[in-house]
Formats: sequence, structure tokens, C-alpha cells
Amino acid sequence: MDFHSLAQRYQTPLYVYDFDKLKENFLGFKDAFAGRKSLICYALKANSNLSLLSFLASLGAGADCVSIGEVKKALLAGIPKYKIIFSGVGKRDDEIYEALREDILFLNLESFEEMKRVEKIAKELGKRARISVRVNPNIDAKTHPYISTGLYENKFGVEIEVAKEMYIYAKTSSFLEAVGVHFHIGSQLCELSPILEASQKVADFYKSLLALGLEVKFFDIGGGLGIAYEGEEIIPLYDYAQGILSTLKDCEPTIICEAGRRIVGDCGVFLTKVIGEKSNSHKRFIIVDGAMNDLMRPTLYQAKHHSYILGKENEPKTPCDIVGAICESGDFLAKNVLMPSSESGDLVVFENAGAYGYSMSSNYNTRTRPAEVALIEGNPKLIKARESLESLWANELELL
Amino acid sequence: MDFHSLAQRYQTPLYVYDFDKLKENFLGFKDAFAGRKSLICYALKANSNLSLLSFLASLGAGADCVSIGEVKKALLAGIPKYKIIFSGVGKRDDEIYEALREDILFLNLESFEEMKRVEKIAKELGKRARISVRVNPNIDAKTHPYISTGLYENKFGVEIEVAKEMYIYAKTSSFLEAVGVHFHIGSQLCELSPILEASQKVADFYKSLLALGLEVKFFDIGGGLGIAYEGEEIIPLYDYAQGILSTLKDCEPTIICEAGRRIVGDCGVFLTKVIGEKSNSHKRFIIVDGAMNDLMRPTLYQAKHHSYILGKENEPKTPCDIVGAICESGDFLAKNVLMPSSESGDLVVFENAGAYGYSMSSNYNTRTRPAEVALIEGNPKLIKARESLESLWANELELL
Ligand SMILES: Cc1ncc(COP(=O)(O)O)c(C=O)c1O
Ligand SMILES: Cc1ncc(COP(=O)(O)O)c(C=O)c1O
Repeated sequence: MDFHSLAQRYQTPLYVYDFDKLKENFLGFKDAFAGRKSLICYALKANSNLSLLSFLASLGAGADCVSIGEVKKALLAGIPKYKIIFSGVGKRDDEIYEALREDILFLNLESFEEMKRVEKIAKELGKRARISVRVNPNIDAKTHPYISTGLYENKFGVEIEVAKEMYIYAKTSSFLEAVGVHFHIGSQLCELSPILEASQKVADFYKSLLALGLEVKFFDIGGGLGIAYEGEEIIPLYDYAQGILSTLKDCEPTIICEAGRRIVGDCGVFLTKVIGEKSNSHKRFIIVDGAMNDLMRPTLYQAKHHSYILGKENEPKTPCDIVGAICESGDFLAKNVLMPSSESGDLVVFENAGAYGYSMSSNYNTRTRPAEVALIEGNPKLIKARESLESLWANELELL
Repeated sequence: MDFHSLAQRYQTPLYVYDFDKLKENFLGFKDAFAGRKSLICYALKANSNLSLLSFLASLGAGADCVSIGEVKKALLAGIPKYKIIFSGVGKRDDEIYEALREDILFLNLESFEEMKRVEKIAKELGKRARISVRVNPNIDAKTHPYISTGLYENKFGVEIEVAKEMYIYAKTSSFLEAVGVHFHIGSQLCELSPILEASQKVADFYKSLLALGLEVKFFDIGGGLGIAYEGEEIIPLYDYAQGILSTLKDCEPTIICEAGRRIVGDCGVFLTKVIGEKSNSHKRFIIVDGAMNDLMRPTLYQAKHHSYILGKENEPKTPCDIVGAICESGDFLAKNVLMPSSESGDLVVFENAGAYGYSMSSNYNTRTRPAEVALIEGNPKLIKARESLESLWANELELL
């Protein structure tokens, strides 16, 4: 099914995800770690559409969650509780309570203080909380500062010395069971060496825990693998897996990988229709019906999503910005790109929009969020309807 | 009612708006232009809560809208159609159709191409479309580039020469009636001179239109007045109004002012509770239950919202970041601020959060959006309930 028919059938702006590609990407991760006990915990934050999750669940995926909302979605989608982990630097008590009650695989902890809260809540529940500690290896992941997470100046993880104290404390507690160790140094990573450097540090630490007699079973390598937005050379999954495994000589932990973007990013496109063009003496603008509220990455990270006008790929091109209807100059989907002359109704395709697209969308300017469609063996299926205007204010109207 | 009780009653994170202050701010604009025919068209994009709109409607406010959703909300809130204008660079045909059908005051046009579309739709409807043209005066408004809108490199408005052609064209059309002229050079403006420079340019143009025999009645000066986020010196409304009027000697248009932030910004606070603190050898972090999905301005514009911990204003302070639970380093509410030592349950107050706070919020990380509460003569009233997790995925569950 071609994008024109999809746009006609479901209207624009529209997210379209190719589930065949999704399957291929997910299985790529499974294969890369096939020789070892491993669990691919898909990072829901990248895209948490329920149908997409349920599709991944059917392939054997686990889930990496950062809020109780994500945990509940993972469960709803049929991901078994023993494949669900809960990470994140700001877990509220009620979230910890719920996660323990649901008996998920483990919680990735971000501080000693958090561990004490988890212990307290586990005690209340009369349970032993399975935990893992996120180590901050203080390594520069070489990515956008907003998504670099492995430096001491970032809020994430704890220093190795603190982590060690946490494991020792956990060992003495009747309400804690340290089952894993965790790191994640950033997102959209295109260099393997910082990842392996981090993995080596954490692997050495892991081995020191084993030497202390701690039975830590899971080695959680986080997510973060980049995709080719602008022709970046991406890290081959085989090299990634082999590199990680080479830091784990003489031990056999179960590997957990929290990939998000690399699984779903290149499966998705964002389709938007041209409203009109305008030019002044300085610049040409293609105005489309999608905007920064639908796809925030260009505005927020100066991210570049390759785009083209469907059916006009071979026409002569001149520079322009592709912009939406939102009332600020920060609202652009592409800046200084080469595009053919466009007309109202033309379809612009933004590639690599499967990750951190819909999940970051908002209703700014009282705009409804787009619909989401899956292509399953080439057949389209609506997996989220376009919001209605009425639904935006129903709750406000009641209280008027 | 104090913030502690509000936080207890409505939970956190929470937006609280002081409607008495809102009234004062709105009447301040009315007063400033009192000697003249004027209409304050509140810019909904800043905060479009229905109860807030209906309160402004009761004070005589008009509405500046940038989407058909905003037009519908303005009407729902009881703002009369003859006080509603529709601006924005990307109006879709169906939005133009609806706006004309609703018979609102006028449409601010952004290009010749758009005018032709409006004409065509007006013709279909057998109506005469009241329009105004947004002039881009090419003046640097001296604000954040994302909210600077009056330069040729921005997508907004048309050059004066083009505007002139548009008015001449409109005069010959049976389906267009040019009733106004418009400019808006940016938001969070703290310098009067660029505004007056723009006003002078557009006023001269306006007078040239009158000289051509065009009966243009409205002089729409946009919005954009800044507030004191970090102790900025703000533009006195009296000086603003007098300055604008001084550019309009020898003519008596009805002034339209599209203020948003200056009306609602300093009426609102964002309340969030401390989850816990963490420190490493480099940095201290206060982790709160609010995050960038609730209040995007710090992340998106590096905006600073003055904040304090309630009841600890006088305790000794050390540097820290205030961060939320979201899985990226871009998620912060304040960076390198001085704060006392905090404990779980402490309440952090972020000031000046009434504008571009809730309106830009999202569900990133499957987080529910906060509740909104109005204080009316000191009494709290819930004006938007906190979202439920179930409501986030209801639509996805149906399609699973
Ligand atoms: C702890 C953690 N794990 C996994 C991910 C997923 O990252 P990515 O989508 O880059 O694979 C993130 C992203 O921020 C994260 O913070
Ligand atoms: C055309 C127009 N009018 C009014 C406003 C409101 O601006 P402010 O909230 O700064 O007053 C904006 C803001 O972007 C705008 O683009």
C-alpha cells in the first residue's frame, strides 16, 4: 500500500509503521545475542503504541519502562511480568509500590536513597524487591547533550563506589535482592568505543560483585544504539554484541538490552500534506499540516529527518524550510533542505520517525495528535485514531 | 488557600492560576488603551483552559486563535464571534471554511497564496471574507530565536510591498474585505523600541492604504510583551500603549492587541513535590514529580522559572539542578540554582508558569498531564482534572 492511499484513507498528519521491518529489527537484536542467555527489553519511551507493543510481545520482547504508566502498558500488551524492568531517576513511591505488587523482573535503582525507599515499600508489602543498580561510568557518549546520560554532570546512575556500597547493603537486607547491574550512557550513539569502555568498567565491577559472593545474574547494557538519520555510519549489531560479550569473559550473566530507537526508529515515517508555499526575498517555506507538536525532534534536538515530496523525487530542487502552522519560529520540521517546488496537497514523507515521534507529541496550539497506522505484511491497520477536538476539552467542559 | 493545602487536595504536579491577578492583568491592557477604540484579543496559545477563557470572556476579552480548535474553544467559552480573530501561517482549507462559516471578526493572512485560498472558499460559501494581512517588518525583536517572528528569515508575514499588492487585489474581489493590518515580531519582548519601530513601519503603511481609499479599520499590533522571569525590566503597559498610539497620529483605527504571556504568565505557578535528592562527587540533584513533559520551557528555550521550596525560603542554600523523572538529560526544570537541602514531600514552587506551561505539555514517558486549579477570590476550583492513565491508552486498547 502506497503512502498516497494511506494519506487519503487516514488523513494527515499521519504516522505509519512498517511492522515487517520492526520484526526484522527486533530479531536482529535477538540474533546478535543468540549464543547467550539474553532478553531484549524494548524501551517503551521510544514508542509505546499498544499494538506495536503487543506485536513485539508476540516476538518475545521484554519491556524497559520508566513510569508506572509504561509498566501497565507493557502488561496490557501481553508482555509477561518476568520480562519487565522499571528504570528511571524519579520513581514515585506509589509507582514503586505498584511495580513490586505486579512482581516485575526488577527495578533499576538510581541512588542509595531510592534503594531505601524501595526496601521500605517492599517491607510494607512483605516482599523481597528484585533490584539492579544503574552505574554511571562517567563516559562521554558523544551525542546530543540532552540525550547523553553517562557523565557525572548527568542526573543518572551512581558512581561505582556508591554502587558497591548499595550491593553490600542489599545483601544484608531481607527485603532486597540484587539481581542485576545496569548502565546506559546515552541515546543515538554511533560510536562503539564509549559503549565498550562503559561495558568494560561495569563488567569489571560486576566480576568484583561475583567475587564478593553476590549472585548477580543480569548484566543490563541499556539501550542507545543510533540509527542513520543523516547517513551516519551505524554500529553493526554483531560488533555491538561481540564487543559487549568480550568485556564479560569468564562469566555468564544473562544480557539485558534496552534498545528503543534502533528497534523502532527506521520503521516509521511521518506523512504530512503541503498546505501551501510562501517565499519572501530571503527564503522559501513549504508549509505543511504537520508541526512541532506532532514531531518535536527537529525543534528540540535540531534533529534531521530525511524528507522528500512523494512523486517529485526527481524534480529540480532549491533550498527551503519545511514548517508547520504553529505560532513560533521554533516550529520547523526541516531547515535549509533542498526540495522541489510543491503544491497544496503534495505529500511530504519524513523518514526515521518511528522513535521519539508520537511519544513526544503534544496538543500545543489546540492541535489534535495524528493517527498511527501499522503496515502488517503490507496491510494497513489503524492502531491509534486521530484525536478529536472534542476529546481535547471534554474534561475542561465538564468543569466549566 | 496556601500551596501546601492545594498540593494535598489536588496532588502534584499541579498548575495553579490566580484569577484575581488574571483580571488585574487583563484590565491593565484595557486601561492602557482606554482612550481609544480597542479590543484585547487574548492569545489562546499561551493557555487555553476553558474556564480561564470563560473568565476572560466575562471581562470582555476577544480571542486570537491559531487553529480551528482554538476558535472553537473561544466560542465554547462564550467569547462572541465578532471578537475572534484567526491568525497563523498554516491554516488548512477546512479550518478557513469553518472560520468563515462561524463568521468570526477576521482572518490574519500570511501570504498571497493564502488569500487566494480564502477567496475561493469564501466564494464557495457565498460570503465576503473579512481579512487582514500580517506584515513582516524585518525587525529584530531581540528575543530567543525560536520566538522571534519579525525577520525575513522567519516564516511569518509578508513584505510590505507584497502586502500592498494583496490589499489592492482584495479591493477588486467580491469575496474579500480587507478590514485590518497586522504585525507581531516575537514573544517575551522586553524592549519597546523594536515594537515601536515595527509599529511605525506598519502605521505608515496603514496610512498609505487609507490614502488609497481603502477602509481598513483595525490596526492589530500582535502580542509579545514579556514578563519578569529573571528580574527582567518589563515594558510598562502605559508606555507601550502611548508608544503605539504615537505611531498612529492623524488616524483612528481600532487597536487590536493579541497579548498572551503578559496576561496569563505571572498568574500561574507550577507545583511539584520532591521525590528525593541525589548527589555525586560533581553535582546535587533535587528530583521532583514534575518533568519536562509538564513544563517544557526550561528544556526548549533554556527558560528560567524562579523557584523555591515552600517553607524553606530562609534556609542555607547550595547549588543544584532540579530534575524530573524523564529518561533524558534534557529533562530539567532548573539548572544550577541555589536551593536548600530538601526532603521527600517538600513542595517546589515554579513561578510565572501560567503561559506556555500546560499548553505545551505532553504525555512523554507515558506520564499523565497535571491538573489545573483556579483561585477565584482566593477559593480553589478545579478547572482541569489530572489525566488518568487509562485515558492515555483507551483509544489504543480499542484497536488492539
Ligand atoms: C535507561 C534507558 N534505557 C534505554 C533507553 C532507550 O534508548 P534508545 O532508544 O536510544 O535505545 C533510554 C533512553 O533514554 C534510557 O534512558
Ligand atoms: C501572531 C501572534 N500573536 C500573539 C502571540 C502571543 O504572544 P505573547 O504570548 O508573547 O503575547 C503570538 C505568540 O506566538 C503570535 O504568534
